[in-house]
Amino acid sequence: MFDVTRYAVAADAIVEAGRFLYQRGWSPATSSNYSARIDERHIAITVSGRHKGRLGAGDVMVVDLAGRPVQSQCRSSAETRLHTVLYELFPEVGAVLHTHSVKATVLSCLLPPGQPLTLEGYELQKAFVGVDTHEGRVQVPVFDNSQDIDALAEQTRAWFRAHPEQPGYLIRGHGLYTWGRTMDDCLRHVEAFEFLFECELETMRVRP
Amino acid sequence: MFDVTRYAVAADAIVEAGRFLYQRGWSPATSSNYSARIDERHIAITVSGRHKGRLGAGDVMVVDLAGRPVQSQCRSSAETRLHTVLYELFPEVGAVLHTHSVKATVLSCLLPPGQPLTLEGYELQKAFVGVDTHEGRVQVPVFDNSQDIDALAEQTRAWFRAHPEQPGYLIRGHGLYTWGRTMDDCLRHVEAFEFLFECELETMRVRP
Amino acid sequence: MFDVTRYAVAADAIVEAGRFLYQRGWSPATSSNYSARIDERHIAITVSGRHKGRLGAGDVMVVDLAGRPVQSQCRSSAETRLHTVLYELFPEVGAVLHTHSVKATVLSCLLPPGQPLTLEGYELQKAFVGVDTHEGRVQVPVFDNSQDIDALAEQTRAWFRAHPEQPGYLIRGHGLYTWGRTMDDCLRHVEAFEFLFECELETMRVRP
Amino acid sequence: MFDVTRYAVAADAIVEAGRFLYQRGWSPATSSNYSARIDERHIAITVSGRHKGRLGAGDVMVVDLAGRPVQSQCRSSAETRLHTVLYELFPEVGAVLHTHSVKATVLSCLLPPGQPLTLEGYELQKAFVGVDTHEGRVQVPVFDNSQDIDALAEQTRAWFRAHPEQPGYLIRGHGLYTWGRTMDDCLRHVEAFEFLFECELETMRVRP
Repeated sequence: MFDVTRYAVAADAIVEAGRFLYQRGWSPATSSNYSARIDERHIAITVSGRHKGRLGAGDVMVVDLAGRPVQSQCRSSAETRLHTVLYELFPEVGAVLHTHSVKATVLSCLLPPGQPLTLEGYELQKAFVGVDTHEGRVQVPVFDNSQDIDALAEQTRAWFRAHPEQPGYLIRGHGLYTWGRTMDDCLRHVEAFEFLFECELETMRVRP
Repeated sequence: MFDVTRYAVAADAIVEAGRFLYQRGWSPATSSNYSARIDERHIAITVSGRHKGRLGAGDVMVVDLAGRPVQSQCRSSAETRLHTVLYELFPEVGAVLHTHSVKATVLSCLLPPGQPLTLEGYELQKAFVGVDTHEGRVQVPVFDNSQDIDALAEQTRAWFRAHPEQPGYLIRGHGLYTWGRTMDDCLRHVEAFEFLFECELETMRVRP
Repeated sequence: MFDVTRYAVAADAIVEAGRFLYQRGWSPATSSNYSARIDERHIAITVSGRHKGRLGAGDVMVVDLAGRPVQSQCRSSAETRLHTVLYELFPEVGAVLHTHSVKATVLSCLLPPGQPLTLEGYELQKAFVGVDTHEGRVQVPVFDNSQDIDALAEQTRAWFRAHPEQPGYLIRGHGLYTWGRTMDDCLRHVEAFEFLFECELETMRVRP
Repeated sequence: MFDVTRYAVAADAIVEAGRFLYQRGWSPATSSNYSARIDERHIAITVSGRHKGRLGAGDVMVVDLAGRPVQSQCRSSAETRLHTVLYELFPEVGAVLHTHSVKATVLSCLLPPGQPLTLEGYELQKAFVGVDTHEGRVQVPVFDNSQDIDALAEQTRAWFRAHPEQPGYLIRGHGLYTWGRTMDDCLRHVEAFEFLFECELETMRVRP
């Protein structure tokens, strides 16, 4: 059982996030899924296939950390396990956002297989929690896209157990996953990643 | 004779679609035309030459499937037959949108004559009705632009009779046609196509 | 003497145009100037140096066709003569818009000196008054920028006397001039030019 | 002691500037900082780490020209000294804006070390105070990014003491600093710089 008021607060944060992310063009065509923690065992998460710029009361459901619906007949995203793995791994995480931008898609396809995206020398790296200088490196692993979500979930669990300080990952041709203590932290991470992806692509255009 | 309430509902969906598509920059300078099915023999369609971001009550008329005005003195788009062919061919289609974006225009001109645009490996392909994996291929034929709309209409009829599962086509230097069961499906297709066109162009910029 | 109501209508069209053009990014940083015809001998025109997205009652003045202020202590743009030449040359012209976009600026600098921009094969050419096929050519002359506005005005007069069917011109590193019978026609021309400039640049990026 | 009404007016200008700059994408992810002069010895400045699109009453504090908080427990930006140096150097300066755009970031990284950005031949250079022709040159020095703000502050002081007519500077991989007599002048400078940065990058894409 979960606290209904905490569910309502989490759902509200998700609805607001959707308006912002859709308007920025990062969640087009009913893509993307978002979640927020209710308690140690429950998360609120978007129902599969909804328009992210027009989320409403009926578009956010509850699942447990195994990804099973709780008190709901709806179906959550096929990628629910990619969310729950992060809540399991990082007890302090309060929100996870998965977005689909053109920049994330293209950049993830341009990188050679097996090579992470390395972000370095950008002042904006300081937008990530725990980073207080532009002199470090942010490593963004790029996992191959797969419809086998359980396998992908285990890959991400293994990678982030080994690199808990890194703030997100890409799935090739697909999109970004990032997280934070609060929804505001998580949205700031999305903004920072999108900014840095655009910087990387803009640079590649001039120096391919 | 057609049901006037169904006309009004169709016209309203068209007006709303226009606001969205114009605001996104996909229907500039009075270009584009949109339609929605009223019944088996009638469609609502935009009057020729109107500003798509400011459509109002007088900007949507009725035509039959031969493209003839019904209970109207207005003139529909010169491209009306490109719409009606699709309603004839696919009885389940409820809406057709024709848009003019920079990306669709440029991409259609960059492709070698006779070669379709092939979209492959993008998660966002799942936004198209009937697609549930990124592993398939979406084929987008590119027809040469022509002011002989009847001839162009027959070309599209022949191609889509042979490829009914494909969700849209381009006219070179001109724009996109796509369709769906409902206006929402159709708008999702436009968004998905524009996203994928931008991905393709963005990739070409780095790897010409 | 001019009709005050006609002035007010012209000024209102200019204020509205400014909101649109500024919001699109085509009149940044107090650049640009706009005018609308009041009668055969008077035009309403923006006062020099005003913020184009926030034009108000005091930001539109009257000048005669020689560019002299009428019933006003304000100073109109240094480029006023580039407007009045067009009203002299084309009695049917009701509005002239001069905008400063990134695309117009860059494209005008990339073209070899003495060479016009040729727009060809684009369906959107039909947005220009008098064009009803994509098969023609729109020629856009590019004049060198100059602070000697009288000389520049005479260059444009000579060119458009010889090519009255062409809808606009560029000044290198500076911006676009276009016109129309009504402000709506003129705004449609700006939209069409900006679309086509973007198409040209987008193509050059892939095929330099 | 400072006049509280003057503080309130300065704070209001900063809040409004933030809404504009965030909406344009030039202050993402809680980056950037803004200030406005209260009197010869005090400036209003944003509190560190706030969301620039949602600044409110509690997000603007007062510091003296040595950068020390006045009547406040808050912490101003680590870069406060980069603001105060400019107020010390130029008694007529009333506002300083520091923004983080993709264009400024990428362009500053693409320029060879030690080389300023030279802007030349653009009509929009006239948007800078004191420039009345496109024929001059705007020089924008690019300082290496550093977490040693005092050292950076002294570098900027030395450079602008020698070049007081230049309107701004870049920090590599970081962003833009510009200033003006009023907040409106300063915002016009940001718009002009962003326009010109985009022109430069757009040109490099075609002619790398």
